Parts: sequence; C-alpha cells; structure tokens
Amino acid sequence: MFTPVYLDHNATTPVDPRVLEAMLPWFSQRYGNASSRHEYGRAARAAIDEARARVATAIGAHATEVVFTSGGSEANNLLVKGAAGNMKPGLVGVSAIEHPCVREPAKALQRQGWQVQEIGVDGEGRLSAEDYAAVLAKRPSLISVMLANNETGVIQDIGRCAEAARPTRAWFHTDAVQAFGKIPVDFRALNARGVHAMTLSAHKIGGPKGAGALVLDKRLDLAPLISGGGHERGLRSGTENVPAIVGFGVACQLVSEQESAVAARLASLRSIVERGLAEQGATIFGVDAERLPNTVYFALPGIDGETLVAKLDRAGFAVASGAACSSANPEPSHVLMAMGIEPGLARGAVRVSLGRETTAKEVSDFLLALAETVFQLRRLAVLAG
Amino acid sequence: MFTPVYLDHNATTPVDPRVLEAMLPWFSQRYGNASSRHEYGRAARAAIDEARARVATAIGAHATEVVFTSGGSEANNLLVKGAAGNMKPGLVGVSAIEHPCVREPAKALQRQGWQVQEIGVDGEGRLSAEDYAAVLAKRPSLISVMLANNETGVIQDIGRCAEAARPTRAWFHTDAVQAFGKIPVDFRALNARGVHAMTLSAHKIGGPKGAGALVLDKRLDLAPLISGGGHERGLRSGTENVPAIVGFGVACQLVSEQESAVAARLASLRSIVERGLAEQGATIFGVDAERLPNTVYFALPGIDGETLVAKLDRAGFAVASGAACSSANPEPSHVLMAMGIEPGLARGAVRVSLGRETTAKEVSDFLLALAETVFQLRRLAVLAG
Repeated sequence: MFTPVYLDHNATTPVDPRVLEAMLPWFSQRYGNASSRHEYGRAARAAIDEARARVATAIGAHATEVVFTSGGSEANNLLVKGAAGNMKPGLVGVSAIEHPCVREPAKALQRQGWQVQEIGVDGEGRLSAEDYAAVLAKRPSLISVMLANNETGVIQDIGRCAEAARPTRAWFHTDAVQAFGKIPVDFRALNARGVHAMTLSAHKIGGPKGAGALVLDKRLDLAPLISGGGHERGLRSGTENVPAIVGFGVACQLVSEQESAVAARLASLRSIVERGLAEQGATIFGVDAERLPNTVYFALPGIDGETLVAKLDRAGFAVASGAACSSANPEPSHVLMAMGIEPGLARGAVRVSLGRETTAKEVSDFLLALAETVFQLRRLAVLAG
Repeated sequence: MFTPVYLDHNATTPVDPRVLEAMLPWFSQRYGNASSRHEYGRAARAAIDEARARVATAIGAHATEVVFTSGGSEANNLLVKGAAGNMKPGLVGVSAIEHPCVREPAKALQRQGWQVQEIGVDGEGRLSAEDYAAVLAKRPSLISVMLANNETGVIQDIGRCAEAARPTRAWFHTDAVQAFGKIPVDFRALNARGVHAMTLSAHKIGGPKGAGALVLDKRLDLAPLISGGGHERGLRSGTENVPAIVGFGVACQLVSEQESAVAARLASLRSIVERGLAEQGATIFGVDAERLPNTVYFALPGIDGETLVAKLDRAGFAVASGAACSSANPEPSHVLMAMGIEPGLARGAVRVSLGRETTAKEVSDFLLALAETVFQLRRLAVLAG
C-alpha cells in the first residue's frame, strides 16, 4: 500500500490505536442508545459520563461544563448562533482570522439585526490591540477570538483579551480546536480571567471525526441549534455518538498524559523544518509570533502554493496549501490577507503541520523532496520564460 | 459477558459486522480530511462519494439530493429551521405524533413569528383527515408528517398526504428514520407525488451513530444550521465524518439487498409476539393500522410500563417503555395521548422492536419472561392490596 508521509495534522489526525481500541466495543457489542433504560442503555450512559470527565480533566473544566457536539464546526455555530438567539441584537466582535465556522455564523446574525465587527491582526497574525480596543469601545455583546490559528499556528493571549473585555460584560468565546493537544489549555484559568466558552474537536487530537465539545460557563444561556429529545442538558439533542464520544475521552486522556513531551519533540522537529526552509529562501508567516509547536506556514518566492502541494503529493508528501476546509476556494487565504501579506506571496502559502507520529526521517525526507520539487518548478519556469 | 436479549431496535441497532469492517480502515489508516488536496484527502472524498451513491440508490434518489448530517435529529432540525429561515413567517403544520426533533424546532419557529398547528391522529395513530384538511385550508408554508412512528410503528400514507398538500404549494417533509430499512422507501416516487424532503438515520438500520441524511428536492432552498467551510453544498459545514458516512453507505446497501426478506421474517416473529401478548390480555396500540413489521407497542392492564421494563431488564430482556429519546420524561407518551389513549393505560406502554439478528428463540424466551414477570407483579399487587 502506498502510504505518503502525512504532514497535514492541522487538517485532521489519524485515530490513535489506543483510541480506536477503546471505541470498538461500542459499535456492535455495547451498542445501546444512552437514553434507553436497560443494560445496553446504562452502559452507554456510563461510557459517556466517563468520557465527559476525561474531556473535562484534560482542560481543567468541570464535567457539567462539557457539551458534546458532532465536532468543532457545530460547537462554534452553537456558541455564536445559540448565544445570539437568547440576546437582543447587538454587536458581535470576531477576529479577522477566525475559522469560517465562526465567521459565517457571525455573518448570518446580520439577518437578525446584529452588527459584526472584525478585529484585525498585525503582520505576524497577532490581534491588533488598537482594533480590539475599538471593538470593546462599542460594547459588544459577544466576542470570539481563536486561541491558535489553524493556518499560521499563531497563538493569541486569550486570557488578556478576555480580561480587557470584562468591563464591557460581553460573553467571550475562544475556538481552541487547533490549540488543544498542542499547547496547555486550561479552561478553569481562562474562565477565571473572563473566557465563558471554548470549542474543542476530537479529530484534531488523535480522536475520531464526529465528536467535539463546547465547554461552557453555565451563566451563558444558549438557544440550542439542534432541539428535540433534550440531550446534553437540552443544548444539543440527538442520539449520542457513543463510540466517537468514548474515543474523544480517551484522546483527551492521552493529551493529558503526553502533551508536554509531544510538544517538545514537535518543536525540535519544526526547528529542523524551519532551518531547511530558511536555506531554501522561504518566508515563514508569523515567524516572530508565539506559535503552535507543530505548525510551519511558508511561501517560496515565485512558487505557487497549489502547484507545490500537488507536486509534493505526487512525490509522496501530504501537506496543505491553506486551511483544508476552504481548499475548494481559489482565493488567497483570508488569514494572510488580514496579516497584510502581498497576494502574490500569499498564493504561495503551504502549511506543514506535524503530529505525534511524525519522525525525524520524514521531516528530512520532506525537506529533500521540497528542494527537488522547487528546483524542477523553477527550471520549468525558466524554460517557459 | 452478560448479553441481554436486545428487543429495542427502534432506539438503536448494533452496527452490522460488514458495516464495521468497511469503516475500520478510515480511522487510523485512510484518515484524511475529505477537503484536503492530497492522496489522503482524495481517498476520503471518493469514499464519501461512493457512500452518497449507496444512500441514494437505497431510496431511489439522486446522489446530489443527499445531504449528510450527524444524524436524524440534525436533519430534521435542518429541514424545519432551515426551510423556515429562507421564508417569510407563516404556518407550519406538523403531526401530533412527530418525534421531538421535529416538534421542538417547529415550536422554536414561534419565536420568529411562525404559527404551528398540530395535525391530530385517530385512535389507531393514523393522521386525521379532518385535521389535515383544516391545516391545508390555512395554506401552510411547511408540512412535516413522519412516514412511520417510532413508538407505535404506524405507517402514514405519505404519498397521499403530499398530493393533498400540493394545491397549497407548501413544502412537504417526511421523517423516514423509522420506516427506512423496515419497509420499502422510494424518495423518487414520493417526490413525484409532492414530497420535497426526507430524513434518514444510519444507526437505525445497522449503521453507526453519527451519520444521517436529509434527502432534498433542490427546489427547496435551506438556510444552513451549521455554516462554515461550505461542506455539503453549503448546507452543512464541518469536517465530514468519513468512517460513519462510509458505514452509512454500506448499511444502505444492505438495506437494498435484504430489506424485503428481513421484513418478512420480522413480520412472522412479530405475529408470534402479538399472539403471545393477546393470550396475556395485552392491548396492542395501533393494531388495526398498517404498521412496521418489527414493532409491537402494548400495555397490560394494571401493569406500569416503567416497572415492567425494569423487571424485564433484570430478567435479561432489553425493551423500551416509550421513545428512548424521551425516557427521562415521566409523562405518558405524547403519541398515545394524541391517539386518545386513557393515561392510565398509556403509562403501561411497552415497546418491543425486533431487528435483523432477532431469533425465534429470543422471541419465545421473551414471552415466557414477560408472563413470569407479570405474574409476579400482579401477585405483589394483590399482596400489597
């Protein structure tokens, strides 16, 4: 079997074998509906309770603060639309580099009379203090700023943002989908500084697709997106996806156990990638900002990102030319545009995101393949010129 | 391992071993994000395309009409809230026996100025022609009537309902979650008679939890519930749950291959159950209506349903006292209330729902256990009296 080197862990991760093993009994043996009042149902309910405790422990939350969803996009939609659904229309402030699953729900609120104001970032992808102050001055009802960006890996000082927002009494949400599992994430500490809600996703941390969570300060009252049987304290109806939730729990437990060791190893691999890229004349986006230890987002002068990704794919290396979720979109990345990157350079953007199972050999093989690919592309360009 | 006899297939079903086998490679080996433009991503995309074709084939729809969701509750919410989201507030007509995940979204529309009118049913659980005509006379914008009820198994003549609604130009939706896999379901034929949308769920047909579909006539324009990266033609954003979707596809293929044979076998097993229940003096709800071949919903005079379910559970038989999704609710079933069943009798309601793997021995063992349990409960009642 052809198994390309996978360097696209910010798009999704392989399910950890320990996670899959924990999930397996819940498909065909212990398959009950967690709402059922018999042995099968009780077993499923107990498994969900255990998973909820594991998710909560991994981020220092209380189990009752964890609302399971089908994933990060649903959790972000639930927060934005659900919080707005219980408030009078006002102002929602979102950073200009949010994932579309925060930006689009915010835009959708405009139809209900809400105003949306984007908070810009500087050239390194860090929230603009000036822009943020301008939004706060307008007394927003809701603010959403991601903990770490999916493309650049740039980390925001969310605790400080939330503290600054306190006088406005806005509800403050952070999308921690990319941060969680790569850097320490402590909901209790952030909550003490004014963060009211946080989004997590299982499939970004070695868990399965189909599970995520909104971690929620109970003072924030949400209208459900999916209503019905009243599951998840009425905030998310629908038969619980027991195997995926069990897998999410185990993946969180692995994060609790391994995160710091994995992060240190990935940071050292990333240094190797970045040294290699520097030798090849690459621009690394957000290089001077604090970033996730696994993410390198770069461009090489005169090289188109889409083309490079396609060539590397044929050479056996899986990397991304932008956020996977918007790969169908030929526009340059909205994140790089917000950072003021020149569109020509932005179109060259390629993201390498390392994971737990990435080896030093894979990284050095990648750098060799990249050099060879770029050499060929430049030669072709010269011949064509 | 203690494995009770499972007779609660309307709540959920075991994942068929062939389904699980098809899902397995997509967790830890072929784990790509279907939006990624590399080998891993393309493989995931191709798997989703294949699954979509299988779902479509099983119900006679076109693949482009299938919108994957995280399950039936999400699909029902997407239809009700999503259709209303693109219309001026009007009247929505829903049957009085709909699942909460249709009734609750309909109620939620009231906050946006919509009117909700329930369509009653007769004593056998069949839609009241008079009530339905009254709703149609008010020119509803949207109608939702389930194909088969989860509690009673009673089947509605949805084609006729949709035809009757045509002059009103209302959008017509049917929740086919319980019908699909148990009786033939033909979206193309129903669409020709005026059905515009249909809800399916994987975990009710031997597929995994975490996948469902809204089958949608493209003339019906929906506002997405979950917006973001633009997945599923912009109708449902979020990283696709590839293993669950693959499993849903295979489960649909099994339905296509086996449905009629399975239905015949289940109908004969159900006759045995019903004869046994009649001998024990049970009332069978909806007995004179056309019903799903696997469902028996009954009550025994003077026996509380919750108590009976608990006793049978201890005896090793998993059955339901009402819809699993609302088991936390101590009120008598809204379905039985709508049918005009006396509350005392309704509180005795117990549902037995058979599945593909149910054996004749399990059925006869159940009848013996039921007789024994009822004997004990009645003796206790006499002693207490």
